[in-house]
Amino acid sequence: MKINQFAKTTPEIGIIKTELTQIGFPTTANSPIEMLKKLIQRAFWQVSGSNNQIQQLNQYLASPTQTLGNFLATNTAITAENFNLIALQLLGFQAEADFAISEASASAQKLNVSFHNHFETSDDVLINWYQLLNTHTKFGLTYLDQLAAQGYYAQNEISVNQPLFFNGKAQATFLTKDFLYETVYVQTDFDSDNDGFNDLIKVEVTRPTSDQPVPVAYTASPYDQGVNDSFGDRLTHAVDVPLTEKPAGTISLQSSASLRTGKAQAPKSTTESTTETHTPKPGYTLNDYLLVRGFASVYAAGIGTIDSDGFQACGDDYQVASTIAVIEWLHGDRIAFTNRTDQIAIAASWCNQNISMTGRSYLGTLAIAAATTGVPGLKTIIPEAAISSWYDYYRENGLVVAPGGFQGEDADVLAAETFSKSLRPGDYLTSQKTFDQYLQQMQLDQDRETGSYNQFWEDRNYRKNLKNVTADVLLVHGLNDWNVKLRNPAEFWQGIQNLPISKKLILHQGQHVYINAFPSFDFSDIVNLWLSNKLYGVKNHVDQVLPDVIVQDNVDEDTWITPKNWLSDKVVTQSLNFDKSEFKNELPEASYQKYCQAAQLWKHHLYDLNNPELSEQRIASVSASLEHDLTINGEVELDLAIASDQNLGMLHAALVDLGDAKRLEVNPQILAPKGVHLGYRWYTDNLREFKLAKAETPFKMISQVHLNLQNRTSTQINESIVPNQFYQIHLKFQPTFYKLPAGRKLAVILYGTDFEMTNRGNQKIHYQINNHSAQLHIPTN
Amino acid sequence: MKINQFAKTTPEIGIIKTELTQIGFPTTANSPIEMLKKLIQRAFWQVSGSNNQIQQLNQYLASPTQTLGNFLATNTAITAENFNLIALQLLGFQAEADFAISEASASAQKLNVSFHNHFETSDDVLINWYQLLNTHTKFGLTYLDQLAAQGYYAQNEISVNQPLFFNGKAQATFLTKDFLYETVYVQTDFDSDNDGFNDLIKVEVTRPTSDQPVPVAYTASPYDQGVNDSFGDRLTHAVDVPLTEKPAGTISLQSSASLRTGKAQAPKSTTESTTETHTPKPGYTLNDYLLVRGFASVYAAGIGTIDSDGFQACGDDYQVASTIAVIEWLHGDRIAFTNRTDQIAIAASWCNQNISMTGRSYLGTLAIAAATTGVPGLKTIIPEAAISSWYDYYRENGLVVAPGGFQGEDADVLAAETFSKSLRPGDYLTSQKTFDQYLQQMQLDQDRETGSYNQFWEDRNYRKNLKNVTADVLLVHGLNDWNVKLRNPAEFWQGIQNLPISKKLILHQGQHVYINAFPSFDFSDIVNLWLSNKLYGVKNHVDQVLPDVIVQDNVDEDTWITPKNWLSDKVVTQSLNFDKSEFKNELPEASYQKYCQAAQLWKHHLYDLNNPELSEQRIASVSASLEHDLTINGEVELDLAIASDQNLGMLHAALVDLGDAKRLEVNPQILAPKGVHLGYRWYTDNLREFKLAKAETPFKMISQVHLNLQNRTSTQINESIVPNQFYQIHLKFQPTFYKLPAGRKLAVILYGTDFEMTNRGNQKIHYQINNHSAQLHIPTN
Repeated sequence: MKINQFAKTTPEIGIIKTELTQIGFPTTANSPIEMLKKLIQRAFWQVSGSNNQIQQLNQYLASPTQTLGNFLATNTAITAENFNLIALQLLGFQAEADFAISEASASAQKLNVSFHNHFETSDDVLINWYQLLNTHTKFGLTYLDQLAAQGYYAQNEISVNQPLFFNGKAQATFLTKDFLYETVYVQTDFDSDNDGFNDLIKVEVTRPTSDQPVPVAYTASPYDQGVNDSFGDRLTHAVDVPLTEKPAGTISLQSSASLRTGKAQAPKSTTESTTETHTPKPGYTLNDYLLVRGFASVYAAGIGTIDSDGFQACGDDYQVASTIAVIEWLHGDRIAFTNRTDQIAIAASWCNQNISMTGRSYLGTLAIAAATTGVPGLKTIIPEAAISSWYDYYRENGLVVAPGGFQGEDADVLAAETFSKSLRPGDYLTSQKTFDQYLQQMQLDQDRETGSYNQFWEDRNYRKNLKNVTADVLLVHGLNDWNVKLRNPAEFWQGIQNLPISKKLILHQGQHVYINAFPSFDFSDIVNLWLSNKLYGVKNHVDQVLPDVIVQDNVDEDTWITPKNWLSDKVVTQSLNFDKSEFKNELPEASYQKYCQAAQLWKHHLYDLNNPELSEQRIASVSASLEHDLTINGEVELDLAIASDQNLGMLHAALVDLGDAKRLEVNPQILAPKGVHLGYRWYTDNLREFKLAKAETPFKMISQVHLNLQNRTSTQINESIVPNQFYQIHLKFQPTFYKLPAGRKLAVILYGTDFEMTNRGNQKIHYQINNHSAQLHIPTN
Repeated sequence: MKINQFAKTTPEIGIIKTELTQIGFPTTANSPIEMLKKLIQRAFWQVSGSNNQIQQLNQYLASPTQTLGNFLATNTAITAENFNLIALQLLGFQAEADFAISEASASAQKLNVSFHNHFETSDDVLINWYQLLNTHTKFGLTYLDQLAAQGYYAQNEISVNQPLFFNGKAQATFLTKDFLYETVYVQTDFDSDNDGFNDLIKVEVTRPTSDQPVPVAYTASPYDQGVNDSFGDRLTHAVDVPLTEKPAGTISLQSSASLRTGKAQAPKSTTESTTETHTPKPGYTLNDYLLVRGFASVYAAGIGTIDSDGFQACGDDYQVASTIAVIEWLHGDRIAFTNRTDQIAIAASWCNQNISMTGRSYLGTLAIAAATTGVPGLKTIIPEAAISSWYDYYRENGLVVAPGGFQGEDADVLAAETFSKSLRPGDYLTSQKTFDQYLQQMQLDQDRETGSYNQFWEDRNYRKNLKNVTADVLLVHGLNDWNVKLRNPAEFWQGIQNLPISKKLILHQGQHVYINAFPSFDFSDIVNLWLSNKLYGVKNHVDQVLPDVIVQDNVDEDTWITPKNWLSDKVVTQSLNFDKSEFKNELPEASYQKYCQAAQLWKHHLYDLNNPELSEQRIASVSASLEHDLTINGEVELDLAIASDQNLGMLHAALVDLGDAKRLEVNPQILAPKGVHLGYRWYTDNLREFKLAKAETPFKMISQVHLNLQNRTSTQINESIVPNQFYQIHLKFQPTFYKLPAGRKLAVILYGTDFEMTNRGNQKIHYQINNHSAQLHIPTN
């Protein structure tokens, strides 16, 4: 176990004393030991009676042979061993399991929670105590957060329902029993469902009671009002279909069409109170963490969802406009009503006009989309596992390429699933016909026939508007995310590099998951430090304090590093030497059927070069064992000359780490169910962490790429193929950050189709490659 | 999907009107349609404005072509199709996925939520509406519970913080923001750790604010203050050890020794207010469900846990006394203090002196233990997956037999794990030496050497005191629980049959799991009906309303049946015909090592009669395909003559269902994370259900039994074995309730050791059986 905290700072003693005083801790004493005693007594405010408190403190040790109560009553000096031992216990670590009682300082150092070793003055004690309050316990948040969750602020009546900042971060001083749950309907300027009226969008606000205006963590979640899985299932596309030849030609693009407008409802009156409430639904626990710390939590599902108007459109301009309409209301630039019919206007007067957006996947995607409009009031976005261009979600290099695990899904399927208005049969009675027509058009426009980049995808490419971004960006993505592939964050990250905004990047070792309850990494604190600055204006120097890039190491557990940047331009080129010069696409029918049912098995056989079942369909180039560690930082590129014996062809290339090793799991384990306490009488979260697998594995796929040979030049240009003619291609693997330790081998494996992601028609195609021309370009640190 | 509700009753119209009036629903109207309109409008109290309400109602359908708002505004008559269609939508079922819009009544019947089809009068509508309020939604609780969770009582100020009963069950009228969190220390009459003072027990009370005294759901959980896993791991016993010969003889037993007493603290003063609070920990969500309905939730971890005194003892008389001390305080018969040192006494004056006990496994075990003392105030227990005699947990028929999944665990291991005082190093500094000595004595007393029944187990056999039980019993167990095996509930159930108490039994298809959030079964309602009667004195006729025995079917999903009783005495006897007359114990070293590492694989190979790897170690008798369904109800018994070529021997017999079929999974799937709303602004639970596995399996173990051949007569009598001499044995399989459909085969498989549960020394032993004498006795319905 190792605690990594990037959002913890060490101010000078004057600030420490001021901040400790603000949260009700004493700062003066006649001796270091008296100082420590006063601080600890304060931390045990819940224990009634002085004899009782001594007995309680005697449950802890101050040295291997002395209990804490006795130590504080009789000792005259403090050693580093004393303090570290006390601290480790208060932080919830288990004696003789997580740390050694007789080696407290060394144990603390191993856990990465150590303290300075001066105890000559009361100030020395205060500095360490301040550090202790800011240090993470075993359970995912700081010791001060733990005290707050036990009722420290509420029971001692400190800053109740007022913003309070400690070490630059907002504290959990807001009472959950005073939270307000309000619902309003924001009126947009567009009519996406063509009913003649501008669409209304339902917005659910949960906010603390506070004397002063509060900022907002806004999550735009199309899933929030329900998901129609069976509708999506019905539309899911067949993927056991052949690749077909595309006519040669270049696809032309236009600028986006303007939005259709409808009739607006004029306000008949205004009010200061909402009349509708809402019942909390399971949401992003980060928002719940923020709520109790003075950030309102705002959810909107947007057009096409229950109690709102309009159609779901998988990220088009209407959906983006629907997303930012909520921000415009929060910022005072747009009208909202208390209900859908009575035209009573209500302002977000409780909001300090500073808005952030949070969320993962589609939710983070809409945060990116919103930021690219430059909407006023949106001060920062924290997109996690987010799409920056939908082409990079459903397509790749001229091919239909599914998000991992969702074969046959496409933009229309997602639109149907999130069209939650269809879950209300009365609503659907009127909208079904037009929405079905709308879906049919979408099915044409998304063009699964060619997989090329066209106007549909151009309309859903937020990167074309990056110049508009004024919101600061805290970007988060999993390096093992094969659902939203890493081209999405990489191109976004590169595209904002020169904008005059603050930008930070966190890459973790998960797949498509949240990371806000990990003991090894203080993500919630980072967000808190970030938003305290961006939304509350706290001068905590977060832009300097946070490293620009934090990457979780893929070899060691609980290790987070800070490389200078992601996507290095320092490149090493290697010649490849494939084991054969030809491979074929088709499989025997039995194998084909088997792999269609079990894509995981196919992947396992593909990467296991000893497995003979795919030997005719695969060629591989394997490096010698690495003499030194190699860190891949960015997009690996592949040069290759390839020929197909047909007038079409597709290629799946994988970059694979070979060698027996225990590797990190890509899904977190639950270490303690409900172990993270987000606030006083408030929600909990499961404490979780990526752990090393118990067993060794022989390989791991590092990155991959897919190509339609007709799009060897561009996704927008379809070119002919002359059978058996060699074409030089230049492939860019999905970007990554991967440490390959010395002793491992690096393999490039080529294959025709991808059972997990591409269409798989089991076509008879024969490929040849030219070994002499094959080169790999590896970006390194 | 199918809803089964056993706690729903249909009173006569007068009572229906009274109850509807009490919860604020109208009961008079000029016509059936007006009646329905008024009721629905009330259910949509949250929707502001009349135009808005019509628009909201128009999201629903009243017929395939008419929306609900329009229907209520214009129609003059109601049909059963109308009502069922409306009801299914309000219950959260999805149109065209869970039900057919054009076949609403038939769909409702399939879902088992149908209504009567008269709508001539307003009363007809009221009866159906009453039924609807009491019907389960798709999300695990009733429609009225859903309204309550949305704020129906709180926002309409109906019976807030007062007990309210509807259809015999307590309603969620208590505000969570007004809950009180109190901690007290109950003083016992004994001194388990021999420190000279009577042990204090920490008790954590969470209770609603209420004008009148409230009853209690009390959970005695030794795990509640933390678990020292590493301590337990350290003590876990080696199981790859040989069986040894026991000297012949009979073990004598005495009555229990009396408890050691220490010095009592006299109260110095009394108070009405506690001074210590507590932070909610994850507990049993059933208690959280009850809390908001007017039942205080009380947790105590008992002796040997953090902030209490004493030692952990795995269920001995001290632990039982510690468990009931809390009840005695709640009932007004015992003193408690506000803290551990200041001797300020506090009474549970808020308690109506009616106490129930809830909990699973060890928690339920202590409920059984408490009930067998006859302690006043304990009105009922709801033990789930509970132990009734610890011999039946850690031993079987003269053998050490581990709880499934916990090889090497024993009473000492569990005592160490739950001795959470060891997690507080200061506390442990003083107790370590005496507790270690105590554990050493326990290790001798539990006697892993012989596995026979002795004084240690007699002291932990609660069944010897069944005559004392005065509490009503609602007993719950999983038919696939191989952790707490079914002899525990079976012998308890049989033992209380003739007591003058009310007793009910629920057997589900899970292993060691809770069942309180299943859409198919109204377990929470059953408990609510039960406790409303037992603790609040509501005359809801629960003893008559609830079937005596409810069993979940093992063949069909979502099916719960009500056999007359469990453990039938109608027996069918079959002759067996084993495929061989001999088998040996030892395996080749490689196989042995493999199976030691992977007991699940061993089990799979054992029951797969086509697998040759265990063919010399296994003999089997397989029936012909069954011509008719066979229901096994109770203990299957096996008569057999067997000989060992050594002076010792052990037998593992399994009863196996053979035949390809999709079988129910024994762990529930999560259908909707946080999908069950337990109350207004209160906790949620994961909605879950046992589902049929997606793939067919070739077999399933129905029951099993283990025997030390030296204990062929009794667990208390060790008899010699003459090598190669045949002994007649009579084995009782663990009790079960199992439906074997026609077409399946029933197999009896004999083996030496059990890699999952017994010691496994890979000894060279050769067994012979006499086929002529082999008979199986099957209890059937």
